[in-house]
Amino acid sequence: MSELWLSEDLHPYYRKSLKINKKLVDEQTEYQHLQVFETEFFGNTLVLDGIIQLTERDNIGYHEMITHIPMLAVKEPKRVLIVGGGDGGSLQQVLRYSSVEEAVVCELDQRVVDHSRKYFPAFGDPWVDPRANLLVRDAFGYLEENPGTFDVIISDTTDPIGMAERLFSDEFYNLMVRALKPGGAAATQCEQPFFDTSLIKTIYETSKRLSRHPAYYYAQIPTYPGGGIGFMYVSDTPWSNGLNKPYPAGVNNYLNPLMHQAAFALPEFFRRELYG
Amino acid sequence: MSELWLSEDLHPYYRKSLKINKKLVDEQTEYQHLQVFETEFFGNTLVLDGIIQLTERDNIGYHEMITHIPMLAVKEPKRVLIVGGGDGGSLQQVLRYSSVEEAVVCELDQRVVDHSRKYFPAFGDPWVDPRANLLVRDAFGYLEENPGTFDVIISDTTDPIGMAERLFSDEFYNLMVRALKPGGAAATQCEQPFFDTSLIKTIYETSKRLSRHPAYYYAQIPTYPGGGIGFMYVSDTPWSNGLNKPYPAGVNNYLNPLMHQAAFALPEFFRRELYG
Repeated sequence: MSELWLSEDLHPYYRKSLKINKKLVDEQTEYQHLQVFETEFFGNTLVLDGIIQLTERDNIGYHEMITHIPMLAVKEPKRVLIVGGGDGGSLQQVLRYSSVEEAVVCELDQRVVDHSRKYFPAFGDPWVDPRANLLVRDAFGYLEENPGTFDVIISDTTDPIGMAERLFSDEFYNLMVRALKPGGAAATQCEQPFFDTSLIKTIYETSKRLSRHPAYYYAQIPTYPGGGIGFMYVSDTPWSNGLNKPYPAGVNNYLNPLMHQAAFALPEFFRRELYG
Repeated sequence: MSELWLSEDLHPYYRKSLKINKKLVDEQTEYQHLQVFETEFFGNTLVLDGIIQLTERDNIGYHEMITHIPMLAVKEPKRVLIVGGGDGGSLQQVLRYSSVEEAVVCELDQRVVDHSRKYFPAFGDPWVDPRANLLVRDAFGYLEENPGTFDVIISDTTDPIGMAERLFSDEFYNLMVRALKPGGAAATQCEQPFFDTSLIKTIYETSKRLSRHPAYYYAQIPTYPGGGIGFMYVSDTPWSNGLNKPYPAGVNNYLNPLMHQAAFALPEFFRRELYG
């Protein structure tokens, strides 16, 4: 039998492929081409417009790092907004905090939610939690309508291609920071240090204009391009305020106190480029 | 014109491909299939038996981390052995220390040395340094003949496939540790935490039997499988002894004091597996 491979062409000079056992979903939604594959080593894998979004095997590092770094930094986070994140992985982590009263997920594509509930059971179907509030809509309008509202905002989005490009813009960062409560913290999916240096630099400059303690941090995720992904922390509260806080139950895959600190260490060439 | 891609099949479930501009070398040496490609983003790339060994763009992180961690830990390293490393990248880093009197490179394949001198000029042709001593031979016999000889040993090898498999064995680690001076330190190329967990665990157990302060550490290298590679530090001297030492001139690509510490932080699932 011939082999099936899922190949991702996000960068014109670099490709990554996962071996496929079978295709589970192949659907053109209102917004994007949505596929779910069962892969050989990484388990079920969600693919949007040809780009790997998450796999069962290595998504937890991503979700722990994009959520807990801002969640731990802020004192008693009560209201949380997740932009994108229709798969539910970030929502699961946010709801681990008993202080959380409401977690709004602003996801454009209902089909991402539907298929993820079925094919990523490890997320524990967080949507049934009464504190979860799914809004199937674009985040821009929602952010505009809700200034000064959230303790934590997590921008858990696809890559800056097509409709997601706006989520990496100056305008988005402005709206996001405006929607934070004083002292609140945001974290955004912010690309690959080796490949996307100049985009990250631009976003860092924006974040510096908008907040007192922006910082870039990194997580090792083998199925992302270059084997990892970074996040921009944007806040007037230093990320290190979260360092010695106890974790809520269930945080046990990637994050630990040493990794918390280590995530903010950057390779020298990149540190120099970003921080000068 | 059709596109050329270099695809690596090291793991049966995961592939990575680099876009090729042209093939520079394609030679069956006495020991292996040696290729050099000019790639679009990563520059010249050395490939042995189909496996990417190094690229001009991202090799420096690897070479800084495999060499400086043990070099800094040991007080005034004078005699250094590099096992493999015929490309010269580790040798370049080792020779940055003015304390070094002799750096022996035990490389089986003279052709790796020859082609690397031509296609990786950034290594600065370290072979012309009078302290460099290239031995074209197998490392096992050499280690056996030289007990208690080296301040630092660096095992800079290919993956544990074919002839390199022995370099990941109990026997090799025994010989390597025996060839160290008291208090000397070794670092070995030691695979991918997400993919090769059980091999790493075995090597860690061996290292624990042979030394008082073994530790696993990691570097982000986008063109390696899963985007990074780990190293086993094996020594009776703690790695942290090197933490606040000044770097020799020229160490400025990947390593910095925060990255030095961060490299030893391990994702929680892997830390639990390795250290229990």
